[in-house]
This record gives sequence, C-alpha cells and structure tokens, in this order.
Amino acid sequence: MQNKGNLIVISGFSGVGKGTVVKRLVSDYGYSLSVSATTRQPREGEVDGRDYYFKSVAEFQNLIDYNGFIEWAQYVENYYGTPRAYVEAELSEGRDVILEIEVQGAMNIKRQYPDAILIFLTAPDADCLKNRLAGRGTEDDEVINKRMKRALEESENMSEYEYIVINDDLDTCIRTVHGIIEAKRCERENNMEFISQIKSELRQL
Amino acid sequence: MQNKGNLIVISGFSGVGKGTVVKRLVSDYGYSLSVSATTRQPREGEVDGRDYYFKSVAEFQNLIDYNGFIEWAQYVENYYGTPRAYVEAELSEGRDVILEIEVQGAMNIKRQYPDAILIFLTAPDADCLKNRLAGRGTEDDEVINKRMKRALEESENMSEYEYIVINDDLDTCIRTVHGIIEAKRCERENNMEFISQIKSELRQL
Repeated sequence: MQNKGNLIVISGFSGVGKGTVVKRLVSDYGYSLSVSATTRQPREGEVDGRDYYFKSVAEFQNLIDYNGFIEWAQYVENYYGTPRAYVEAELSEGRDVILEIEVQGAMNIKRQYPDAILIFLTAPDADCLKNRLAGRGTEDDEVINKRMKRALEESENMSEYEYIVINDDLDTCIRTVHGIIEAKRCERENNMEFISQIKSELRQL
Repeated sequence: MQNKGNLIVISGFSGVGKGTVVKRLVSDYGYSLSVSATTRQPREGEVDGRDYYFKSVAEFQNLIDYNGFIEWAQYVENYYGTPRAYVEAELSEGRDVILEIEVQGAMNIKRQYPDAILIFLTAPDADCLKNRLAGRGTEDDEVINKRMKRALEESENMSEYEYIVINDDLDTCIRTVHGIIEAKRCERENNMEFISQIKSELRQL
C-alpha cells in the first residue's frame, strides 16, 4: 500500500547474533541488504561486494567528497560507510532495505531518515551475552572483557531505538523483526491514501 | 518483558472475515478472547459463554448499574456489552485480550484504555468486499446493499484506528495482526525497565 520502501536499521550487542538474523531476514523474506564500504583489508573468505565493498583510502575519500555515503565513520585507522546510491535506489523502488550498523551510525541515519525503523537486538540478560561470547571459544578473556565493556557503552544508546528485540530463540527473533516491519506498513499514517481510496469506492457503489 | 497484557480491538467491514481471523489468533497464538454479553435471543448452534453470554434485560441493566461493562451499546432493541471482569483479570495476568467490536465501541475502549491496539480489517477494495458478501450466497441484494451502506459509514472511522490490515490472504493477515501485537511488545516505551536492568547488569560484570 505504501510506495516507498522502509529503511531498517539493525544494531545490537556484539555476540548477539545480528549477522545471522540479518542473513535470515534477507533469505527468508527477501529484504534488500545494504553492503558497507570499507578501507580495511579483506579477511580470508570475504568477497568484495558481498561482505564489503573494499576501497582504497583515496576512493573512499572521493566518495565522501561526492556525498556518496549516507553515513560513514572511522574506527581505529579504517573507514566504514553506507553507500547512498544503493539504499536510495532500493527505497524508491519500494523495497525494504536493511542496514546492520553501529549505534553512532544509526543515530546519524535517524537524523537523515526520520521514518527509519531502528531495532536494537539484545540477549535476554548480561550473563547470557557474556556466555555467548565465551561460548564461541575463539576469544580469550581479554577480548571478551573488551567486548563487554563495549556492550556497556552501546547500552547507553539502547533507549534511542524504537524497538528492543530479544534474540533468545532465533526463529522467534526473526519473525518478530519481520513483524515489526509489517506493522509499520499497516500503520494508519502509511495508509491514508488507501483509506481515501476505499471510501471513495464505497461511495460510488 | 511487559507485565500487563495488551488489549487488542479488532473491527472491520462486515464480510471481511473478522470472525475467522479472531478465531485463528486464539487457536494459533493463544490469545484470550473476550466474549460479549447480549440480550438478544441465541441463534441455532450458539452456545452461552462461547458465542455470547445471553442475559435478560434485567440482568444486563444490573450489570450496567454495577459498572460491569467496559463498553455497551444498544442496537435496534438489543443490548450488547463487553464484560469488565474477564478483560481486566486477563490483562492483569499479563495475557493479551482480543475484543471483536463495532467502531463506536472501539472508540469507547480507546478513551478508557489509551494503550489499546486498534486494528481495522479491510478487503483490498470495495468491489472485493461486495463480491465477498454476494459470494456467501445467503444474502439477497437488499441485505448486501444495506451492508455496503453500513461499510461506507464504518469507513468514516477507519482513520481512528492505529493499524489498517488488508485481509487478502487469510494466513498473511493473521500473521500480520500477530506481528503488530509483537511489535507493540518490543516498543522502547514498553521496555524501559528491561533496558535499565541490562545496563545495571553490564555495569556489575
């Protein structure tokens, strides 16, 4: 009923399963996924255009100059950004686009796209979050503690998100996120044209 | 995360399939369903306490006097009302309660329960609505025209509802309504306590 697609921003604590949730939203429901650009080196197995668009610093700088990102940021010595062209093309075609993005980026997006749907994924509690990080078995204590500290920082912005979704059971979490987007589409404000239309049809019958 | 249940009000055009949607929400997702009280005579096959609570006029009047309804109305010469006790008990137990109710009743509910979720079910267009009414084969033209006239009246209040859901495919419609209620549960405003809790847990780790 709505002509323009929704911009969906998904953030959440490290280790909460954002990547899996986003992948499943794309595969199960056909959402479009925005792929970020970065100047960092590809890791083993990463594919250009699928995991990231890998750019040189000069290329990235040029894209900044030409307003090519809807948001970008520097972490440590690498740049990360969300390419504008793809997002805007998809939205104007009526497709819903997902961005998986850090808290600061999300706040930037909200300023530019006030209708963006901001969703924060969390574990049921802090212990559970810590156990998940530890459970990966690949990280040592120092890394886990650093991530938990980062989680504390991220939690400061949780209340800026419109929706808080607990990823306890993966399938439920995915259905809930999809439900949130469907609900948005059904909101009165997004259906005023439909309402006028059916009223006028009823009058003419 | 939320302690109190949601009050869900479902209205919609005659013939749009409200009854089926509501029944499936109860059977598929375990929502509580409020059963209305009425002074009209039971029709064949109707069961007291399942389809309606059948009351004498004196009993109904007494319930009105004792604030026993959260809303009631008179149509033609019969009274219809939503018993207060069941709804409030279910909500305070944290269960989501569905009311299938007319437009005027829905507006009454909204005044008393500002957090109630008001959902309006519609057909994709007016022709489709008319075809569904005709398709039942049980109604003559006069009845159909009367219902379409009533649909026009009801459409005047559509924009008072927070959500407009098109019942085109039944399963999709049911999932969408469930999604709307799930989304409500995830709204930031309903999770402030959870946010404080996890913040304080993260600080203590």
